Amino acid sequence: MQLSSATTMLAAAVAHAEQLGVKVCISIVDATAWPVAFMRMDGTILGAIDVANKKARTAALFQMDSADFAQIARPDGDAYSLENTNGGLTSFGGGLTIRAADGACLGAIGVSGAATADDIAIARAALLALPS
Amino acid sequence: MQLSSATTMLAAAVAHAEQLGVKVCISIVDATAWPVAFMRMDGTILGAIDVANKKARTAALFQMDSADFAQIARPDGDAYSLENTNGGLTSFGGGLTIRAADGACLGAIGVSGAATADDIAIARAALLALPS
Amino acid sequence: MQLSSATTMLAAAVAHAEQLGVKVCISIVDATAWPVAFMRMDGTILGAIDVANKKARTAALFQMDSADFAQIARPDGDAYSLENTNGGLTSFGGGLTIRAADGACLGAIGVSGAATADDIAIARAALLALPS
Amino acid sequence: MQLSSATTMLAAAVAHAEQLGVKVCISIVDATAWPVAFMRMDGTILGAIDVANKKARTAALFQMDSADFAQIARPDGDAYSLENTNGGLTSFGGGLTIRAADGACLGAIGVSGAATADDIAIARAALLALPS
Repeated sequence: MQLSSATTMLAAAVAHAEQLGVKVCISIVDATAWPVAFMRMDGTILGAIDVANKKARTAALFQMDSADFAQIARPDGDAYSLENTNGGLTSFGGGLTIRAADGACLGAIGVSGAATADDIAIARAALLALPS
Repeated sequence: MQLSSATTMLAAAVAHAEQLGVKVCISIVDATAWPVAFMRMDGTILGAIDVANKKARTAALFQMDSADFAQIARPDGDAYSLENTNGGLTSFGGGLTIRAADGACLGAIGVSGAATADDIAIARAALLALPS
Repeated sequence: MQLSSATTMLAAAVAHAEQLGVKVCISIVDATAWPVAFMRMDGTILGAIDVANKKARTAALFQMDSADFAQIARPDGDAYSLENTNGGLTSFGGGLTIRAADGACLGAIGVSGAATADDIAIARAALLALPS
Repeated sequence: MQLSSATTMLAAAVAHAEQLGVKVCISIVDATAWPVAFMRMDGTILGAIDVANKKARTAALFQMDSADFAQIARPDGDAYSLENTNGGLTSFGGGLTIRAADGACLGAIGVSGAATADDIAIARAALLALPS
């Protein structure tokens, strides 16, 4: 995950959030879950900072979108308590893996601050901006 | 739990995982829950490192397999929130106690990275390799 | 501290680091020490991520540059152990306050990854780019 | 850092420790500081477990041996308090980077449990066993 790719995705995420009229934090990590870049839009609720980071971390550590992770890591899921490992993970949508054309995981993006559906839409808009 | 026994079990676990075509982390702790040995197979998802450690820790601290622990330590179980003690425990399978012929608890093994059924099968294969 | 100001400073910091031929992380926080934006240049040592964040946090929490903070928060300083408060602070240069024309503290910037003198120079270059 | 290389180094470290008549923990992490393999020799003091892990982590995060890190990260060093970042690092010897023939950092090894000179000697013996 190069910084230039990350900043391209961040700009696309911010643009999409502005289009939706919402305010979010966006966090991008590499394939080993180390932070690459982060932005908080003006006026975003402060609680969203850590959530965006954890969504990205969840997706990178388990190489799956946080919405899929949520299906197993919940009280009635097959791996209840998995959400409490690795310093705390997020069992809802808005964390997406970033993948190369061949499917290899390059990292992950986490978006938080709006409704979950909007967070996901913003993350997807960012992925579409990823240079191929 | 001697290191030589632990490495024998680790080798058996890795061999069984390769047979199943899966990639896992394996963690072995002694009867007082202190780490003895750990291995991460090439390509295992990074989130599995902490999970393997916590599975072994859960089994050693409560002297029961983590699958049994899961029956009580869950929202609708008899001891909901027990999973949040001791720095965070795991309420699903893959953590097994290691016992002597007389039943005494020698330590525990935790396996994570594959489907839970495979994680358990790999841990069992490791126990079978334990020198008696 | 607006995101647009932060991204302008980040771009200036990256440009100055490239001119110096070094790789750094840059972290910008607001006046209440909450993260606004972060970037890790390709190839920066991973240990610098937390250091950049802590430098910015140190400067914002005490409204002084981390190099000045270092004069008091050290074994032979007037406030030894101050560096161990607030989750851990940094007693060396590279964390600078960001101030308005009237001196009001708007936030702070932390730079880490190169020699301390270079980290400071990069942070200063970023401040010069701050829209007045 | 492949598991097979790590286990080769661990075996060499244990053999050298036995030759010296000391007991140690050995921790190997990859270039992004994630654990690859760990062993605690029978009878090693328990405090050495975390120390070995932190020595390896220190070397990987800053891509320098922990003995060199100690020169700057100490009360009278140029970066006092650096040792308190990243969850706590180790400012003494026994953490060595593992490098490819071309100098690229592949990961790090941390040894703890004996006198520091012995810890370093054991880590060096492990590096010599690294398949080239």
